[in-house]
Amino acid sequence: MKRTVLIIGAGGVAQVVAHKCAQNNDILGDLHIASRTVAKCEAIIDSVRAKGAMKIAGDFGVHTLDAMDVAAVAALIGQTGAQIVINVGSPFVNMTVLEACIQTGAACIDTAIHEDPTKVCETPPWYGNYEWKRREACKAAGVTAILGAGFDPGVVNAFARYAVDACMDTVESIDIVDINAGSHGRYFSTNFDPEINFREFTGTVYAWQGGEWTENRMFEVMREDDLPVVGRHKSYLSGHDEVHSLAARYPHADVRFWMGFSDHYINVFTVLQNLGLLSEQPVVTAEGLEVVPLKLVKAVLPDPSSLAPDYTGKTCIGDFVRGVKDGKPVEVFVYNTSDHAQAFAEVGSQGISYTAGVPPVAAAMLIASGVWDVGHMANVEDLDPKPFLALLNRIGLPTRIKDADGDRALVL
Amino acid sequence: MKRTVLIIGAGGVAQVVAHKCAQNNDILGDLHIASRTVAKCEAIIDSVRAKGAMKIAGDFGVHTLDAMDVAAVAALIGQTGAQIVINVGSPFVNMTVLEACIQTGAACIDTAIHEDPTKVCETPPWYGNYEWKRREACKAAGVTAILGAGFDPGVVNAFARYAVDACMDTVESIDIVDINAGSHGRYFSTNFDPEINFREFTGTVYAWQGGEWTENRMFEVMREDDLPVVGRHKSYLSGHDEVHSLAARYPHADVRFWMGFSDHYINVFTVLQNLGLLSEQPVVTAEGLEVVPLKLVKAVLPDPSSLAPDYTGKTCIGDFVRGVKDGKPVEVFVYNTSDHAQAFAEVGSQGISYTAGVPPVAAAMLIASGVWDVGHMANVEDLDPKPFLALLNRIGLPTRIKDADGDRALVL
Repeated sequence: MKRTVLIIGAGGVAQVVAHKCAQNNDILGDLHIASRTVAKCEAIIDSVRAKGAMKIAGDFGVHTLDAMDVAAVAALIGQTGAQIVINVGSPFVNMTVLEACIQTGAACIDTAIHEDPTKVCETPPWYGNYEWKRREACKAAGVTAILGAGFDPGVVNAFARYAVDACMDTVESIDIVDINAGSHGRYFSTNFDPEINFREFTGTVYAWQGGEWTENRMFEVMREDDLPVVGRHKSYLSGHDEVHSLAARYPHADVRFWMGFSDHYINVFTVLQNLGLLSEQPVVTAEGLEVVPLKLVKAVLPDPSSLAPDYTGKTCIGDFVRGVKDGKPVEVFVYNTSDHAQAFAEVGSQGISYTAGVPPVAAAMLIASGVWDVGHMANVEDLDPKPFLALLNRIGLPTRIKDADGDRALVL
Repeated sequence: MKRTVLIIGAGGVAQVVAHKCAQNNDILGDLHIASRTVAKCEAIIDSVRAKGAMKIAGDFGVHTLDAMDVAAVAALIGQTGAQIVINVGSPFVNMTVLEACIQTGAACIDTAIHEDPTKVCETPPWYGNYEWKRREACKAAGVTAILGAGFDPGVVNAFARYAVDACMDTVESIDIVDINAGSHGRYFSTNFDPEINFREFTGTVYAWQGGEWTENRMFEVMREDDLPVVGRHKSYLSGHDEVHSLAARYPHADVRFWMGFSDHYINVFTVLQNLGLLSEQPVVTAEGLEVVPLKLVKAVLPDPSSLAPDYTGKTCIGDFVRGVKDGKPVEVFVYNTSDHAQAFAEVGSQGISYTAGVPPVAAAMLIASGVWDVGHMANVEDLDPKPFLALLNRIGLPTRIKDADGDRALVL
């Protein structure tokens, strides 16, 4: 059954989502896209039309929306007849969008955890602070809500579930490694909203180790891996959404997230952080002007969406999963590599947006086909990973697996 | 004859000036201090009284003053009966203070070149853009105006004049080297107003070489010296006031200024500069707030005056002067070293403020005693350097000389 889709947000990831929905509009239905700035929605639709991305004829709607306003979101769902909402707006709007879906019965997919703009890095498990408090409400309303269905979180959660189910009897550790080996050619830029990017790294780094939450500072713990395609890279223990749900599912395993950073990124980050320029708390200048330093830093940095045309190189994101199979230790690396220039050629976005934007469309297609239309709230690892990974194999994000038997495409 | 002194400005250098004037108030007379913020003037006077700095009984006056307002400055000179104005306010007020001195007949001493807040690094020679345009007016009014009478510019100009006069027949090059080998114990701080400090280094680096102005970027040209007391240090060709007057006096010599920077300072500066955070041009945040990045950076950095209590280590500032004497090449290094902690113990300021604040008081004492009361505008190298350096030997900034005959105190 075809389902009308409402995309909330109009940034780089929304652009990918719109293109992928259009490419699969024989399964999904008409498309609507809404953000505070309608011109950004129109630009995305223009780009979709320019590429001739629609598989079959279909309609687009663009809408102005304040997604912090539950009633406005619910009204737009009603007006458009949307049955699936893909929320790729700011993480500050997750809970209002979810609430509108609970009220209207629409399925809800997001790609990152909810954040309160006034708080950085709350107590673990993060999902317990907001999303999971609405678990019962989703169940009562029969609403399918898939949390964190981007790449990481999202596909990496499915990688973990697949590896544990298919390759071992018991799991001992899940180490998710995210390496962007691409180059944007600028002195410095973040790959998505600098405000959100830096907020990830200024707080405590939570990992789940030895059956409890452990705390570190950013860039305190490093590992180095020789990875397929991208080669040898350093990565650093980082706080990230998926640790907080995977730790609940696999409490006897260690769950860690590792993000790759160049020495240059770390240097710029360290200077800004030590000077107080990444603070979300306002300071007052000698002239009496109240300024939030992080918002000025965002204003001087490149707009991440402007990087796409010149972005070259590849990403490699995957899960090292260790455990025991038939009494013997086993380790697998389940991963994907993506190419920035190829992503730009296909959908006009760089690889970071591409890897984040394709998975929620796959999730929407699985809801439309009924496979993932579970009628309750779920993190990605709560769902069968095989149809998800099989669909991603077909629509742009193929999974590979590397273990004692070699490095090969994952056939499902 | 005793002369009443008006100090304009109430920062770290003004604190040193006030202490040194008080210590020599048998030659200078009553003291007045004026700034926009009268509380800062009062704090300085409190500190002078607390140290019992006054040599003989004498009065202090504190005043609120907008030094950009010529009429207000002239009125305060009239009201206080000041015969000597020591201007250690922002470099933005130099020309208004000079104008008020021309109108009232008071002698004028400043320590840095005039700057227009909207411009960074104007065309050389810098003195030709503002100060020297009022040379005839000073002469006509019989007003003594001593330009740039801090340490650098100031004492280093006298070092150059002394070396050329006393040690050689012809001069070939003057290389002024400024090394602060002290440590303030903070992650990063400038030693004086960050806005003024960074403005020095964001523009073109002008040097006078081969009979013409040459242009470089900051940190492009480096030298390394093994200096007395502070040891081996790197320094970088930098734009600085004294190059612009010494080049006019010694057009056949190369004149260069070299400032020492740690690799850490350069790294922080480079990050901020490349991100656009040192710009004096406003940017607009996503929320629509107009912010001058440099003013926010100033707001997050430590107040330079807060560094003084913990500052340790020494400074070394001097002139390498090369030339020919009796047909043979000769090189001398004329220099001073100062100690941060000793400066704090004596006057409650760190060494950078101390070296900048003592020389204008020496100049004021030479005006009061008639030796430098020349009745026209002069850069320091236009005046006899011997009484100036002899007086500085006595009041806290002794000169040393190092040449083929060894390293020794300069006895005058």
